[in-house]
Amino acid sequence: MNDVASPSRTIDLNADLGEGVGDDAAMLALVTSANIACGFHAGTPTLLHRTCRNAVEADVRIGAQVSYPDLPGFGRRFMDVTHDDLVADVLYQVGALRALAESVGGTVEYVKPHGALYNTIVHHTAQARAVVDAVAAAGLPLMCLPGSEAQRLARDAGLPVILEAFADRGYTPQGTLVPRSEPGALLTDPSRVAERVVRLAQSGQIVAVDGTVLDVAADSVCLHGDTPGAVEHARHVRAALAGADVVVRAR
Amino acid sequence: MNDVASPSRTIDLNADLGEGVGDDAAMLALVTSANIACGFHAGTPTLLHRTCRNAVEADVRIGAQVSYPDLPGFGRRFMDVTHDDLVADVLYQVGALRALAESVGGTVEYVKPHGALYNTIVHHTAQARAVVDAVAAAGLPLMCLPGSEAQRLARDAGLPVILEAFADRGYTPQGTLVPRSEPGALLTDPSRVAERVVRLAQSGQIVAVDGTVLDVAADSVCLHGDTPGAVEHARHVRAALAGADVVVRAR
Amino acid sequence: MNDVASPSRTIDLNADLGEGVGDDAAMLALVTSANIACGFHAGTPTLLHRTCRNAVEADVRIGAQVSYPDLPGFGRRFMDVTHDDLVADVLYQVGALRALAESVGGTVEYVKPHGALYNTIVHHTAQARAVVDAVAAAGLPLMCLPGSEAQRLARDAGLPVILEAFADRGYTPQGTLVPRSEPGALLTDPSRVAERVVRLAQSGQIVAVDGTVLDVAADSVCLHGDTPGAVEHARHVRAALAGADVVVRAR
Amino acid sequence: MNDVASPSRTIDLNADLGEGVGDDAAMLALVTSANIACGFHAGTPTLLHRTCRNAVEADVRIGAQVSYPDLPGFGRRFMDVTHDDLVADVLYQVGALRALAESVGGTVEYVKPHGALYNTIVHHTAQARAVVDAVAAAGLPLMCLPGSEAQRLARDAGLPVILEAFADRGYTPQGTLVPRSEPGALLTDPSRVAERVVRLAQSGQIVAVDGTVLDVAADSVCLHGDTPGAVEHARHVRAALAGADVVVRAR
Repeated sequence: MNDVASPSRTIDLNADLGEGVGDDAAMLALVTSANIACGFHAGTPTLLHRTCRNAVEADVRIGAQVSYPDLPGFGRRFMDVTHDDLVADVLYQVGALRALAESVGGTVEYVKPHGALYNTIVHHTAQARAVVDAVAAAGLPLMCLPGSEAQRLARDAGLPVILEAFADRGYTPQGTLVPRSEPGALLTDPSRVAERVVRLAQSGQIVAVDGTVLDVAADSVCLHGDTPGAVEHARHVRAALAGADVVVRAR
Repeated sequence: MNDVASPSRTIDLNADLGEGVGDDAAMLALVTSANIACGFHAGTPTLLHRTCRNAVEADVRIGAQVSYPDLPGFGRRFMDVTHDDLVADVLYQVGALRALAESVGGTVEYVKPHGALYNTIVHHTAQARAVVDAVAAAGLPLMCLPGSEAQRLARDAGLPVILEAFADRGYTPQGTLVPRSEPGALLTDPSRVAERVVRLAQSGQIVAVDGTVLDVAADSVCLHGDTPGAVEHARHVRAALAGADVVVRAR
Repeated sequence: MNDVASPSRTIDLNADLGEGVGDDAAMLALVTSANIACGFHAGTPTLLHRTCRNAVEADVRIGAQVSYPDLPGFGRRFMDVTHDDLVADVLYQVGALRALAESVGGTVEYVKPHGALYNTIVHHTAQARAVVDAVAAAGLPLMCLPGSEAQRLARDAGLPVILEAFADRGYTPQGTLVPRSEPGALLTDPSRVAERVVRLAQSGQIVAVDGTVLDVAADSVCLHGDTPGAVEHARHVRAALAGADVVVRAR
Repeated sequence: MNDVASPSRTIDLNADLGEGVGDDAAMLALVTSANIACGFHAGTPTLLHRTCRNAVEADVRIGAQVSYPDLPGFGRRFMDVTHDDLVADVLYQVGALRALAESVGGTVEYVKPHGALYNTIVHHTAQARAVVDAVAAAGLPLMCLPGSEAQRLARDAGLPVILEAFADRGYTPQGTLVPRSEPGALLTDPSRVAERVVRLAQSGQIVAVDGTVLDVAADSVCLHGDTPGAVEHARHVRAALAGADVVVRAR
């Protein structure tokens, strides 16, 4: 956890799990951190419990992936929630997952907002503050985007962060993600995805859509991308990192 | 907390709160334990958060009132859930409330099942076992009915229990509650309710509907009864206990 | 139903019902149109069914009060939903209430958006269009604010509207509602509320917060205002309208 | 629709759709009736809307698959609901789906209970009566198991029924389904499944697990079986019926 981009030979790989979609078992064998849903955008308590157990058995770090309360929309729709509502929603979800994780010998080690909430706290000060307040109250680090409002407020609050880069998302020259509606938003070639992650791990650099070389502070790389080839991408990434002598670990 | 009925000059008074019905503020001034809903039968995270804060300020002990996942039915309908589902549901709820309570300087000190789940684990071995397993995993005592299957399994598992009596429910000569559909199910006269609680606190006795004097092991008395006069009953009970020099406290 | 403000000696009074709060029975005796919740912001099917039955018995017109899917927020939080999602949500709710209403000899005669959705379609073209599309597909009139984007799009689509004024909300000189956070947002004096409704029914005029006299096209007046005195306001309004020989009716 | 088993050269094939699992597009090309979820056990309004549209385009008959309100349990858990609650729940769901279907040029033509509710009304008189009451109020036929309590009450009420057999479930000599926990509960060989459906269509007979030949009144055959090979089974069944000159149609 650090706020400064630094070349590194160690990287954490994270993915979204417990959502009832995708191949969780395959991903657990490839990542070192699992962002486990908490029931607000996906996941029943039973599924979350089982996912925690599987993560513990796979020695994968558990994070709570908190969301707006929006099951029908899978947490992908902005909601104009108050500070008090958002603080309570985040605490509720983190606590729920924590009890499930601890009952199987694990624990929740960080919080990652999901979907629309993740994107909102990149720029929305009031909601970013609510998330930071709740995560600080829970005594956990926050996984967020470098340069986001959430990161800024976390730093002000002394809240540790886990900075995240995306393996398969296009970056603008300014270091933000290319919106999904625009060309270059997604990398679909597994070898390019793998190459991106290796370079990031080795030199802390990501090449933007226009060729600009960005310095990106990243403690963890998200392999999830809502893409069908998630598992295949993950396998390529792991193989490429192994070939480059980069150590993949969460802690 | 004990499994043996014993005359006592100390009693705990509990009530259901955070359900968005009734006068929570008035009840918090009268009881020593608050069974706070966890969102499965009632209560939003925001309301539960506020209720925890109010309980902490009133120095009232917090319990997690866990339920079947049945918001439209207010948790009052039996559901034929599996062991795994019920364990996960209970852990999820307890953890959620715990995080909310701890963020305001409190903590969850016991678990009390709500509504149909409470009644089911009086006799349903499999569901009682699931509740006991979950509450044991959460490391908390279980509030339950003396003589219930839940109490028996908790004892076998070494799980502490808080035995509960009801201030305003009729008792059969066998020590079970008179079903709500039968005459004598509810005591509606505040002075009789108060008299019942005083006698219970002083001598560990409850008079059944047919006059039989029952020995009732009770660490706590539930003042909630789904009755309109809940607050009035509570005031009478507090006054009567004060007049009888019975100490009202949770711990 | 008309789009033109016209002096009238007839007025419809509407209120929000089936939300599990407030005194529905008292309101049903005072209003001529009931905006019945559809389960997305409040109301279980059983409660909605009963409310429909009571409305039919009271000869009160039934409208479907549709909402964002937001039970914990009571539909009061903006959600950034897509056109397809909003169309499907509105149709689903209208159809659900229709089946309940028809089973007790009634029918749904109009659609009124609730809470944040109501406010959003005053200005949000895309969401207003989705609501208009769904309500047109359901073959019903739309109750909305005069001058709103929803009214404009409904007119373009040939969709009948029921224009609505508010009995107890302050109006700006521009004819919009004073935001709740500002002074003058709410009228709390029952006699001023009654006076407002009588003048509106007689002359189609409302006096804004600064004294400006507004011409307001209104087919129906909302007596609901999230205020504690809703029933008392309604009684004053009915008495004042009777004294002024204004006929209160829905159709 | 009839209550009497009769040899027939025409058969309807139905499957569960709109649940967000399985290959709906493939099944729509193979069946003649679609039991579309209504949001209580699965399905968002948007998904249900799209599924109705696809069914209309495929000229597949639409039925409303109603459930207990149990999203986390996928409607597979018995709930002890009252008559009033169940009537309102069924009406709500049927109406919701009806509005979605009608907006895309279709209509709901029957009601089929899902999961635990389907199984419960085979024997539970009170819940069967509530379902019959609600479906009669909706003016639709009820799809149910021959010999069930639901069929008996529907007949008494003059409610048309669509009797259903199962392509891949084992039958006891008494004509009930072999419980899933016992051997022979599921037919997994596609050619045996196809053979069963052809014989049923041609002679109204099903061979029970012990070899007993049963006369089974069936207007429709369910191809859904929670089995992975659902689409493959359906293809075999269609091919075998074509080879045997059995007409597959819903009406």
